Amino acid sequence: MYYPEPISKLIDSFTKLPGIGPKTAARLAFFVLEMEEDDVLDFAKSLVSAKRELTHCSVCGHITDQDPCAICQDEQRDGSLICVVQDPKDVIAMEKMKEFSGKYHVLHGAISPMDGIGPEDINISTLINRLKDEGVEELIVATNPNIEGEATAMYISRLVKPAGIRISRIAHGLPVGGDLEYADEVTLSKAMEGRREL
Amino acid sequence: MYYPEPISKLIDSFTKLPGIGPKTAARLAFFVLEMEEDDVLDFAKSLVSAKRELTHCSVCGHITDQDPCAICQDEQRDGSLICVVQDPKDVIAMEKMKEFSGKYHVLHGAISPMDGIGPEDINISTLINRLKDEGVEELIVATNPNIEGEATAMYISRLVKPAGIRISRIAHGLPVGGDLEYADEVTLSKAMEGRREL
Repeated sequence: MYYPEPISKLIDSFTKLPGIGPKTAARLAFFVLEMEEDDVLDFAKSLVSAKRELTHCSVCGHITDQDPCAICQDEQRDGSLICVVQDPKDVIAMEKMKEFSGKYHVLHGAISPMDGIGPEDINISTLINRLKDEGVEELIVATNPNIEGEATAMYISRLVKPAGIRISRIAHGLPVGGDLEYADEVTLSKAMEGRREL
Repeated sequence: MYYPEPISKLIDSFTKLPGIGPKTAARLAFFVLEMEEDDVLDFAKSLVSAKRELTHCSVCGHITDQDPCAICQDEQRDGSLICVVQDPKDVIAMEKMKEFSGKYHVLHGAISPMDGIGPEDINISTLINRLKDEGVEELIVATNPNIEGEATAMYISRLVKPAGIRISRIAHGLPVGGDLEYADEVTLSKAMEGRREL
């Protein structure tokens, strides 16, 4: 017994979080002991309420504390344009850009036969229903630029093209501020392929 | 509004922990959303109980859920030998070694005139009382090997030597598995100074 029971339990809880090993967990747990009691209570409450009060929006699948979510309810947004992303975090990344005024659809994953994840395991069927019900005209597929994301984009594209909906994929190329020298050849070849006239 | 309120509160709470910036905090918060509800409740409970149930041992100053702490109550341990450390975490590091059978005294800091911390701000007066009451014969000062730790060791040594108590300082030298090439000159000079006959 190195630690008194309450602190070893807290260390265990911290260790369950991603990227936090036993040493960091111990450091965080000892820090909690030195925190103001009010802050600790707030922390505990926010853990429980984040878990309990948040659900997935029944329309777009984004995390929300009201259903439908604030974005789906927003009349100012263009309902004919939907951006398809893999993850709620991606919605937040897009929103930070402050340039997209359409709505979103969160897939909660990507097609990955290697991991046994097929089209029916992710949020695609609700997307297809939305296309009919909401009069969607354009779909921007912003899944991740890796094999699973590309496969998912391809699958969705084949599914919706017959319905006459415009569908596009976000551009691949060099990240802004990046360095040509350090770009991998696949990215560079995509950047060449996607070149635009000046 | 990027995040629904419950999750932004949780992100704020994570951000208060040391070494956790806004990005990591968001990652952890989203991870909590995917955790089992029971695990989240356990986490919340262990936060509150670690804060509420743990106090400092009135004898040695170590964190504990009973007073006096398990180490102070342990009759098997040699009460005539006390190891003085700066921090409860140091007690745990010493205990992991599994070689020390004496008791501990936690100072909760070190003398640091630069930060306005004098001898009366750390747990030294209780140490002096223990020396008389518990019949202590030997003191091992294991404060950190830096200026503040050395100053504290020196201060304690001047205080207890007149009472005829043996006092020693843990050795400075090369860490086991370290490399001579990368050792700084102060450590190297301490290692030379503390050399022992073979």
